[in-house]
Amino acid sequence: MPAVRKAMVERIGPDEFTSSRRRQGCDFAILSGMPDKKELLSQPIEHIDIKRHDVRALVEAMRSMAYSSRDLARAAAIYERMLRDQDCGVILCLAGSLISAGLKQVFVDLVRNNMVDAIVSTGANIVDQDFFEALGFRHYIAGDEYKSGMQDGVLRELMIDRIYDTFIDEEELRICDETTRTVADSLPTRPHSSREFIRAMGAYLEQQGKTPAKGGADSIVLAAYQKDVPIFCPAFSDCSAGFGLVAHQHARQGKPTVSIDSVKDFYELTQLKIANPTTGLLMIGGGVPKNFAQDIVVAADVLGTDAPMHKYAIQITVADVRDGALSSSTLKEASSWGKVDTAYEQMVYSEATLALPLVAGYAYHQRAHADRKERRWARLLEQVTA
Amino acid sequence: MPAVRKAMVERIGPDEFTSSRRRQGCDFAILSGMPDKKELLSQPIEHIDIKRHDVRALVEAMRSMAYSSRDLARAAAIYERMLRDQDCGVILCLAGSLISAGLKQVFVDLVRNNMVDAIVSTGANIVDQDFFEALGFRHYIAGDEYKSGMQDGVLRELMIDRIYDTFIDEEELRICDETTRTVADSLPTRPHSSREFIRAMGAYLEQQGKTPAKGGADSIVLAAYQKDVPIFCPAFSDCSAGFGLVAHQHARQGKPTVSIDSVKDFYELTQLKIANPTTGLLMIGGGVPKNFAQDIVVAADVLGTDAPMHKYAIQITVADVRDGALSSSTLKEASSWGKVDTAYEQMVYSEATLALPLVAGYAYHQRAHADRKERRWARLLEQVTA
Amino acid sequence: MPAVRKAMVERIGPDEFTSSRRRQGCDFAILSGMPDKKELLSQPIEHIDIKRHDVRALVEAMRSMAYSSRDLARAAAIYERMLRDQDCGVILCLAGSLISAGLKQVFVDLVRNNMVDAIVSTGANIVDQDFFEALGFRHYIAGDEYKSGMQDGVLRELMIDRIYDTFIDEEELRICDETTRTVADSLPTRPHSSREFIRAMGAYLEQQGKTPAKGGADSIVLAAYQKDVPIFCPAFSDCSAGFGLVAHQHARQGKPTVSIDSVKDFYELTQLKIANPTTGLLMIGGGVPKNFAQDIVVAADVLGTDAPMHKYAIQITVADVRDGALSSSTLKEASSWGKVDTAYEQMVYSEATLALPLVAGYAYHQRAHADRKERRWARLLEQVTA
Amino acid sequence: MPAVRKAMVERIGPDEFTSSRRRQGCDFAILSGMPDKKELLSQPIEHIDIKRHDVRALVEAMRSMAYSSRDLARAAAIYERMLRDQDCGVILCLAGSLISAGLKQVFVDLVRNNMVDAIVSTGANIVDQDFFEALGFRHYIAGDEYKSGMQDGVLRELMIDRIYDTFIDEEELRICDETTRTVADSLPTRPHSSREFIRAMGAYLEQQGKTPAKGGADSIVLAAYQKDVPIFCPAFSDCSAGFGLVAHQHARQGKPTVSIDSVKDFYELTQLKIANPTTGLLMIGGGVPKNFAQDIVVAADVLGTDAPMHKYAIQITVADVRDGALSSSTLKEASSWGKVDTAYEQMVYSEATLALPLVAGYAYHQRAHADRKERRWARLLEQVTA
Repeated sequence: MPAVRKAMVERIGPDEFTSSRRRQGCDFAILSGMPDKKELLSQPIEHIDIKRHDVRALVEAMRSMAYSSRDLARAAAIYERMLRDQDCGVILCLAGSLISAGLKQVFVDLVRNNMVDAIVSTGANIVDQDFFEALGFRHYIAGDEYKSGMQDGVLRELMIDRIYDTFIDEEELRICDETTRTVADSLPTRPHSSREFIRAMGAYLEQQGKTPAKGGADSIVLAAYQKDVPIFCPAFSDCSAGFGLVAHQHARQGKPTVSIDSVKDFYELTQLKIANPTTGLLMIGGGVPKNFAQDIVVAADVLGTDAPMHKYAIQITVADVRDGALSSSTLKEASSWGKVDTAYEQMVYSEATLALPLVAGYAYHQRAHADRKERRWARLLEQVTA
Repeated sequence: MPAVRKAMVERIGPDEFTSSRRRQGCDFAILSGMPDKKELLSQPIEHIDIKRHDVRALVEAMRSMAYSSRDLARAAAIYERMLRDQDCGVILCLAGSLISAGLKQVFVDLVRNNMVDAIVSTGANIVDQDFFEALGFRHYIAGDEYKSGMQDGVLRELMIDRIYDTFIDEEELRICDETTRTVADSLPTRPHSSREFIRAMGAYLEQQGKTPAKGGADSIVLAAYQKDVPIFCPAFSDCSAGFGLVAHQHARQGKPTVSIDSVKDFYELTQLKIANPTTGLLMIGGGVPKNFAQDIVVAADVLGTDAPMHKYAIQITVADVRDGALSSSTLKEASSWGKVDTAYEQMVYSEATLALPLVAGYAYHQRAHADRKERRWARLLEQVTA
Repeated sequence: MPAVRKAMVERIGPDEFTSSRRRQGCDFAILSGMPDKKELLSQPIEHIDIKRHDVRALVEAMRSMAYSSRDLARAAAIYERMLRDQDCGVILCLAGSLISAGLKQVFVDLVRNNMVDAIVSTGANIVDQDFFEALGFRHYIAGDEYKSGMQDGVLRELMIDRIYDTFIDEEELRICDETTRTVADSLPTRPHSSREFIRAMGAYLEQQGKTPAKGGADSIVLAAYQKDVPIFCPAFSDCSAGFGLVAHQHARQGKPTVSIDSVKDFYELTQLKIANPTTGLLMIGGGVPKNFAQDIVVAADVLGTDAPMHKYAIQITVADVRDGALSSSTLKEASSWGKVDTAYEQMVYSEATLALPLVAGYAYHQRAHADRKERRWARLLEQVTA
Repeated sequence: MPAVRKAMVERIGPDEFTSSRRRQGCDFAILSGMPDKKELLSQPIEHIDIKRHDVRALVEAMRSMAYSSRDLARAAAIYERMLRDQDCGVILCLAGSLISAGLKQVFVDLVRNNMVDAIVSTGANIVDQDFFEALGFRHYIAGDEYKSGMQDGVLRELMIDRIYDTFIDEEELRICDETTRTVADSLPTRPHSSREFIRAMGAYLEQQGKTPAKGGADSIVLAAYQKDVPIFCPAFSDCSAGFGLVAHQHARQGKPTVSIDSVKDFYELTQLKIANPTTGLLMIGGGVPKNFAQDIVVAADVLGTDAPMHKYAIQITVADVRDGALSSSTLKEASSWGKVDTAYEQMVYSEATLALPLVAGYAYHQRAHADRKERRWARLLEQVTA
């Protein structure tokens, strides 16, 4: 793997080069009074644990208030109802940097407690952030003074990547890229759905002992692997795995390669809709994941199956409704497209770190999932795609 | 094609069924005092023509004002500078429903006047909206009273899809889905980049005489085909083409199929960056297209080439910076990732239909592109991927 | 009081006219399938009680997350610190419709527990909403289908006023207008600060037995009266009291009247700053209240006193920073004006019904106010203005 | 005037003290590599001149697009219609820092061309910004690097105030404060409406030769004075005039003073509504000015006059509709309150520096005001209040 290795060497080794580069960064930092990389990456993001916070009384009090609090309480009640509907398969959609923001454990808990049956996500959440932490890395709190972007040049010198108020060690992220390439190299050279690839990432974690049982961090990728919850990333190249896969294809010039077939993703998720017609969506952010999951209703129709619209739909977003973007298009608008039913839909206009612990925590402490059966949809797809 | 045909029949024919369904919609509409489908789809969206509006004095006046007007004037100046830089390849990124909103001709003009060398877009803009119009269909103005979503149930009955304040005839959109399947069926059964598929769509338009020369509407897909401007849709299943491709794969159960390899997209765009190191980004909205185009700097590095950051970057968006989403992450933040240089970058916080005609119109009337050479990057990729 | 009475008659009586008007509204409502006024006003807004929700663990968990949750946790910690600083006088600023949204009890609790020493507010919160409820009236939950505004014409016929997702009976609001006139008529005919007028409103509530002790609802106006917490409304005509005061002045054509001197408000609040130099701001929304409270630092300077900047400042808002409006100007920006110190300042970008119960509830359950002394600033002003 | 003078001395003289203070600021600036005050205040804001930009074709093209461009075109058409309606009195409402942003000349042109009959504004626009410039001072362009607020401490040392991306010399602003005190000292000691006070400010400008005829800058205050267009600031203490008036009242301890009666403002504007029942609102931003102007419909009713709702209403704002704040409440919502008719109303969600030159410029170049008669409402009020 010369190409990537060369890049890695250029970036994180050999020791001499790296340390000279680091020194350059540090000198700059000293000049400008900035702390060094170690200090900047000292306060890790901690993931909120909804199991520890019984927010039911708080959420119920919000039901008789106004604006976002009432919307949030209604969304929580719809999520509870969705889980109590024994026919309903729940699809979780993730956009925006959610894992780096401290929401990983919420999603792990939803998977492990049968509160979600499939996930559609941006690649960044699943690979760059969740799988990255599964490998043993962390995200870090950035001081308020870095939000402005005025020090981003210095951060670049230090190889620290910034997501608004959060830091990532780019040297660690390069190891994550590299690991996805290892996974790619291990797969048969044919078109794969992103779902298949991510399942292989889960298997890798288990094989490498990157599990809570062996002292590792828990992760969405691992939990979903163990619980047979399929994860789809419809724009899979657009993340750390993209770098690994490009390196894989580049190295195999002319020879057959692993490819990621986004049509297969769409086909697979549509199969799930056809097999389990009653569905509900829990959407954080909008973008491609939202649209992709909504579109399977139409796709089922195209395949000749008269699938009903998504019966339940919740979206937590800060996106502005008035520019026509998909991220922000209302769930009512989706009903004109025949995608979402309007009986049980609720938009919550809030940044997700505030709203999601309340919505998910409410449903969890209501034990809405207590009698819910595991769907293990991944097994269904193994059969289909075998 | 029984599956899709069945769906099509169920939706748009045979006459009897359709008309009974239509009557049902109409009856409902009459009961609630709504106009019928024909009336609702009577006022087409007209695309603004920047060539007719010399906005230079206006934009220059904005340079000495504050807030968005000053940002916009600075963005226009950066776009001009980008075009005058003979080394610079310009990548246009499109997210949000822009074509349906009346911006199609702006992008066609950018392509035809050598003001853009590659396009990265959501599928909806390129297939559901641009290719859709190229087939002879239109988007329609929705009355203010439909924005609220209170009539979306009735619209569904009438098979009218709504994008905020704009209507689409879903029966026509189904024909667009079907056409993408025709294109898919005509291709060799191997992994394709979305770029290759969209190029085939352009060839289809030319073959079918869907060109201005033969009385058809001009389109981005056609102009890009003719000018060898590659178009990438990194989440290509997430649009009308996804429906056609799913139908294609479904019909070929067990046999080899066309697949859409998103890794290949990423690899191809990275090759362009390597071949033409100096680059600038003109981004409308954020999401996957923005991230995908920014990431090629890192991907080139992964492939062992020390490609410089994007030298110029403009983003027009209404997204909120404070939720950490990619759509809204500032260009300064991207510089911490080593993706965008900070010397010539400008965010413009405005809805695109207001800001883009001014930014693009300014550069056009400055004749910034007058001495700019065609890059015809698609040819470069034919060689690479042949 | 013929003018107002005439208006009142026209609006809420005599019985015959009203009922004919009501019938007209109802008929219209029946035609369009709408419920009648009584049904529309059947579900009252209930105010959240922070005393019942120990949110400390939740807020502490948010401290190590990102985006709004971390900002919120930091704001809560600053509010706690502000209360533990024995020298610090706390000024609460209110803009936006907060009382109608279910936050009244939060503010009442802050006043009754010595967690706030002065209030600067829009008139609507204090008069149209808080005093209105003190008179025995309520706000009501509006169904989701009314948010769009499509039924606002019918609501007007029914004399129901709407605030986004909340209803008010305009006939009751007219009684509130009328009551403010009664208060005005009882005062000496000279310039009053809004603070003096609102204090008279508090005295009126006590005299009329509109108190919890006598079975009435608790209110900010009453609690502030009893605890000698001054309330300022710098734009006092811009509310229900404005209607009462205009009627008062109109009826006294040519004779001396009560007037509301906004300069006196500014002078009084500045006196408090001079008497108690260490101050902190807890701001919900922005607008005039925020600006007014920030400006007293400069006003003290103008009066020759070298008052320090506000030492602590928290603002909860959804306003967009990028249009230069005062509602949204950052607290850092205020520091360039010498108004707010930057050591302990935090913006929380969230709708207030979600964020305030967490921020205020955290400080309350931390018992940050336990050893805090009452300031009873209203007494200080009685001396000054006597 | 010892108090203010003391403050002034402390701030801008005597020379020795000032220069030592200045040096302190400069030293700090040098240390941190910042330019000095003179350099920071070298690029003045220039006001856009709508008379020079015929935007009609551009705005008309926007009519058949979507989102904000269509809304803007509709707003422009409504403003044109409002001006052509010979019965209609036009009330302009201003909130947010608009004058400092380069929009002063737009409003001056509206006044001088009979395109507006009354103005309701925040005090900052009228006093701190417009009157300030009338005195010969300017606003300055702040470099992009100051937007973040990271240098606000240094700016404070240099006595430079920041409004997002714009600088003000606080030493000059102090002179503006002082001038308002001079005006206050010249008035009879009785309650005044803000309208009367601002009229006196206009007279002061004319007396002092601060007019274009004598080489000075044109201003809203002067133009309104000359054209008898009344200007109301319902929260008048909340601006530079507040400082002057507080100093005035402070200096006159115990003696009669000028006071600013906000009830009188409300009464006067209501009288205009009664005298001229057909009205239209052109609102930039929301807040107190918007609410105040809308409320006069109800106030007229309270005074026994059955005044019609505002017939036309346009609002340009970036405020978010979903938090129930007045700044953002839709014009439809106002119709439930009986304040605004829904036949001709349009919200435009855009930052004002982009949208207003197009809306106002369109109406101007359509010559919609050509046959419009001057209303000279200030004269009407002189009679009423005499």
